Amino acid sequence: MRWTGAHLELLDQRRLPDEIVYLACHNAEEVAGAIREMVVRGAPAIGCAAAFGYALAARAGDDLERAAALLAASRPTAVNLFWAIARMRATRGDEAAQAEALAIYAEDIAANKALGAHGTALIPEGARIMTHCNAGALATAGHGTALGIVRSAHAAGKRVAVIANETRPYLQGARLTAWEMLQEGIPVTLEADVAAGHLMSHGEVDLVLVGADRIAANGDVANKIGTYTLAVLARRHGLPFYVAAPCSTFDLALADGRAIPIEERPADEVTGFRSERWAPRGVAVRNPAFDVTPAELVSAIVCERGVIERPDRARIGALLG
Amino acid sequence: MRWTGAHLELLDQRRLPDEIVYLACHNAEEVAGAIREMVVRGAPAIGCAAAFGYALAARAGDDLERAAALLAASRPTAVNLFWAIARMRATRGDEAAQAEALAIYAEDIAANKALGAHGTALIPEGARIMTHCNAGALATAGHGTALGIVRSAHAAGKRVAVIANETRPYLQGARLTAWEMLQEGIPVTLEADVAAGHLMSHGEVDLVLVGADRIAANGDVANKIGTYTLAVLARRHGLPFYVAAPCSTFDLALADGRAIPIEERPADEVTGFRSERWAPRGVAVRNPAFDVTPAELVSAIVCERGVIERPDRARIGALLG
Repeated sequence: MRWTGAHLELLDQRRLPDEIVYLACHNAEEVAGAIREMVVRGAPAIGCAAAFGYALAARAGDDLERAAALLAASRPTAVNLFWAIARMRATRGDEAAQAEALAIYAEDIAANKALGAHGTALIPEGARIMTHCNAGALATAGHGTALGIVRSAHAAGKRVAVIANETRPYLQGARLTAWEMLQEGIPVTLEADVAAGHLMSHGEVDLVLVGADRIAANGDVANKIGTYTLAVLARRHGLPFYVAAPCSTFDLALADGRAIPIEERPADEVTGFRSERWAPRGVAVRNPAFDVTPAELVSAIVCERGVIERPDRARIGALLG
Repeated sequence: MRWTGAHLELLDQRRLPDEIVYLACHNAEEVAGAIREMVVRGAPAIGCAAAFGYALAARAGDDLERAAALLAASRPTAVNLFWAIARMRATRGDEAAQAEALAIYAEDIAANKALGAHGTALIPEGARIMTHCNAGALATAGHGTALGIVRSAHAAGKRVAVIANETRPYLQGARLTAWEMLQEGIPVTLEADVAAGHLMSHGEVDLVLVGADRIAANGDVANKIGTYTLAVLARRHGLPFYVAAPCSTFDLALADGRAIPIEERPADEVTGFRSERWAPRGVAVRNPAFDVTPAELVSAIVCERGVIERPDRARIGALLG
């Protein structure tokens, strides 16, 4: 995303990898719409976008409480959104709002680079890294969380290869993660989500590395639907299951993952894709966009402050409290 | 599928649920092509189709060894194909071949009805049954294996509801299972495969019920890619994991599932669907079409001779040997 000083430009992720098109947002309403419609997605990225949306409202002299409410109502699961809006509401005046949004943006890039460096220590030479959805540059202000670690390890000269789950229904793995890795020249293999267990059982995966949308105080992790299944499979196969996220993704007010609201998205994401419809008319659909992985299945959480091995309330509190 | 006495008509499953179109096959080569191109799929169904393909070759006076080899080379994993071809090769003459193909077809329907009756005893009143791929009438000569049990339970007056995994990459769950259940008036809910773990962890699934493409002597089950993951999830959540298949799906010559050949299908099934392409050009793809679920994760196998609880070599041998 780009802040021009006058408005926010968002790379329209719905059109990737086919087209590179930026969408200009001139007010909080347009930013909220862009988040809701998945022009921009990924927990840290929607936090940054919301911050700029608030800054646009401050500049225009719009009702700031209404702007904050609009932005907060765009999507329910990623806590970075609410964290960023809370930071913005503590500012006073147009200039302070713009400065705070730019700070949130810059801090996110710095956090990703720091967690990338911490996480690199977890990646063995030659690692075949399975990831889910897109926790890359596109999901953040830049560099990425899970893919930030991949980038940092690659930049440090480690030989790594990514196995990208396509991530139905919205196909962020196929469209975004595969594209980001191809751009960087990092080896990437795409698979349907259903193949993850087969590859693990054939010894073709060394570790699983994903991002997060919200992490509760006990280490339970909400992330893209399908993440929980990967954690269960990783446990069965004795593979490390790592989560990468900045501190802004932790929600220490939540005791555990049961209270994390799980967004249910429209049926038409499941019954087809773009112009294609393949399910019969009239079929009922369930489309939860996230799931919760219990902390006991998480080998470590990597944030900008360091690595939390076997995360629990005490270890998370010790680093973040 | 329909045998006219002169040729074989196959419902083109690639075009379901949008269009009901039958494709006529006049020789073994056309039948082998139809199996390879997924006009007809499902282990019992491709066994029946291959039998009719052989009967067409016998009628035309074609080279029967060549016809058998062509049909056997169409797809590698489902053992029903090789079982049916072996039965056909034991026949002598045009009339015997046609009679044998019709017998294989009729026996499959009878087997499905018998296993449907046996399986009904496993289905509790009100059961929410998760299934994968399509193990229905379309995958067999008629009635179905996993969905045959659903049909039999429904016909017996039990209240049941089906949760259909869409089954990427070929979407047999979304296109075929959802369509079959809607036709029958059996409640069905479609979900992306990635949502299975979430639904189980929220207590929304009572059991998993799938078909099979090949079952080894020890009870290891090859079935549509993604089945193994469901079995791992079912075990974690203490849910029964049932497999429904006729005796023709058992391959007692194989000690265990490791020797089952797993078909790798074309990349373009993963990079898009029909006219839509969503993955970036040049990305590497893995597309295994089947996986193997170890017997220890299988609660029971239902075949036409009865129910094999906690399947192992001894229990399978006792019923089938």
